[in-house]
Amino acid sequence: MIGGGQLARMTHRAAIDLGIALHVMCPSADEPAPVAGAHWVAGEANDLDAMRRLAAQVDVVTLDHELVDNRALTVLVNEGRPVHPSPGALAYAQNKHVARSRLGEQGFPVPPFRSIDAVADVARFAGEYGWPVVLKTPTGGYDGRGVAIAPDAAAVEEVLAAGASWMVEQLVPIATEIAVLVARAPSGNVAVYPVIETVQVDGICTELVMPARISPALSERAIELGRAIAEAIDVTGIMAVELFVTDDEDLIINELATRPHNSGHATIEGAVTSQFSNHLRAVLNLPLGSTEMTGAVAVTVNVLGGPEQVEPTDRLARALADPDVHVHLYGKTWRPGRKLGHVTVVGDDVDTALEQARRAAAHLTLA
Amino acid sequence: MIGGGQLARMTHRAAIDLGIALHVMCPSADEPAPVAGAHWVAGEANDLDAMRRLAAQVDVVTLDHELVDNRALTVLVNEGRPVHPSPGALAYAQNKHVARSRLGEQGFPVPPFRSIDAVADVARFAGEYGWPVVLKTPTGGYDGRGVAIAPDAAAVEEVLAAGASWMVEQLVPIATEIAVLVARAPSGNVAVYPVIETVQVDGICTELVMPARISPALSERAIELGRAIAEAIDVTGIMAVELFVTDDEDLIINELATRPHNSGHATIEGAVTSQFSNHLRAVLNLPLGSTEMTGAVAVTVNVLGGPEQVEPTDRLARALADPDVHVHLYGKTWRPGRKLGHVTVVGDDVDTALEQARRAAAHLTLA
Repeated sequence: MIGGGQLARMTHRAAIDLGIALHVMCPSADEPAPVAGAHWVAGEANDLDAMRRLAAQVDVVTLDHELVDNRALTVLVNEGRPVHPSPGALAYAQNKHVARSRLGEQGFPVPPFRSIDAVADVARFAGEYGWPVVLKTPTGGYDGRGVAIAPDAAAVEEVLAAGASWMVEQLVPIATEIAVLVARAPSGNVAVYPVIETVQVDGICTELVMPARISPALSERAIELGRAIAEAIDVTGIMAVELFVTDDEDLIINELATRPHNSGHATIEGAVTSQFSNHLRAVLNLPLGSTEMTGAVAVTVNVLGGPEQVEPTDRLARALADPDVHVHLYGKTWRPGRKLGHVTVVGDDVDTALEQARRAAAHLTLA
Repeated sequence: MIGGGQLARMTHRAAIDLGIALHVMCPSADEPAPVAGAHWVAGEANDLDAMRRLAAQVDVVTLDHELVDNRALTVLVNEGRPVHPSPGALAYAQNKHVARSRLGEQGFPVPPFRSIDAVADVARFAGEYGWPVVLKTPTGGYDGRGVAIAPDAAAVEEVLAAGASWMVEQLVPIATEIAVLVARAPSGNVAVYPVIETVQVDGICTELVMPARISPALSERAIELGRAIAEAIDVTGIMAVELFVTDDEDLIINELATRPHNSGHATIEGAVTSQFSNHLRAVLNLPLGSTEMTGAVAVTVNVLGGPEQVEPTDRLARALADPDVHVHLYGKTWRPGRKLGHVTVVGDDVDTALEQARRAAAHLTLA
């Protein structure tokens, strides 16, 4: 696995069950996955020689993030190394402009968007679709970075002055944000999780509710859309489709990820098979596990570093006082706003479960 | 953790979730827990210097088996190192004669037993309780080793000629064997799992059914007994009480283990909190997690090495064809009869779940 963060760490946990050795490639042995005992290969995600060292040790190469050099991955493939997802599928997760263009061409619902060179391009786009507009960097954005909402041309000028490459898209009126997690094996076998509701605060996903609080018909449409996209881009492994639900119950594609995804943490306890186990099973072309839920609802609240330095492991006694909470810590040191872990509760009632998970998460980070 | 076998491996998996680093002490880095990435300390379980090296690295010392030198553990305690369970509680798991004597003195139900020096002692015992009798080695027996059923004096002679030290006990008419798993923190807090039915074939536990197929009243009595024993021996961590249920629904204590136990594998998916997580939580004096079940029934079938050399990891495709099975492999190489892993199914119906788990387990070991 290229990348050694929390997604690799939780994949390692799933690999232990299956008797599979997970080798992770990342710059430091202090990252969450090697700290948890995954075999460590030193290397940056764009270092072809390191990728070759990793590939030589394993049956299949996969990844826990998309900031991986696609050309280097293609070299590996051409050298006969199995890489899942393929560089072609990964491109959809790496570049929003590519994803929107290709998905739009195939008839999938993407927001109106345009590549831009200057403020005038944005103004023209806004003339057509109205202000405010959304500015995005096609690559590298996450957790609210690389996204700006511009109410007018002056604001656009300020954003573009920062220097990165940007695209513009329509500001869609969002009622809810959801994610569809699809596991797909090279055999074409597909398993889809119940739709997950993702609650964003300041562009960072802070809470997850499975199943999403949307109508069954909408849920069914979202799942069919996820399934169709997985097929269309020929992905292997877990793919997450982040979707906007508009006030009119239209579904609009926001982003794709072609790896285990932060929206799927609740699948560890909330589904029969976790997304991490199904990612391994998919990339190894093993049969996929059941994505059925283990309870009526499963919610996850992220543990984000608070303003004061608090190490969550020192706060376990308070968080675990509720016997129903599942605490997952990532072995990362504190930084304000940093994702240090998450808490999941499986229960019968969303509000009760959310309250339990929020309380435990707060205990882990507040002084 | 002293010991690096599958119980340590599954404890490591639970430790990852809590952001806790598990250090295991065992002779070889090829054992199941270090292979899964637990920190490895080289050492035999009776090596005081190795135990001191381990203790210097950690907050608390615990164990995954009872073949640990009790005097050496006591030295650690006297040197100020926290050891859970205490050497005093561990003694109940190490020596069947000690356990039966002390538990009997405290009024707990143990089978009639006697220490013996010669065949004549056994004959006298049989005169009182009848033939056949059970011969047991007070220490070191497991998986059917160290146990013999002797129908007459000639058979006793043969067993004693093998040279070990033996005790004799009455052959109890067993209707069912069950295990009660108790988690107990130094605070005195206790959490008890639903009673587990243990199915033994040739002295080896091959299948587990949670909850046991016994009456609610009997189940309640078993749980109360487990709770009382945990209190009486002042154990910290998981304690398993293996019990015989007689045809008359009497409960008789067979063995105690003061560590995560093979009978508790189904708690990983079948209970809200696994025995491994609760063991960690108990020995670290953290609040205990819920022992409630996640479904109506959870069954486990052990994966034992078959007559031909088959590596279970090569057979995953067949075993995982059933999307409901949870496969746990221990990273051990094949030997006939060796415990290489287990399969758990959580479901609504015992017979269906057992059939699913048996089929998957068979796929993992048969050529």
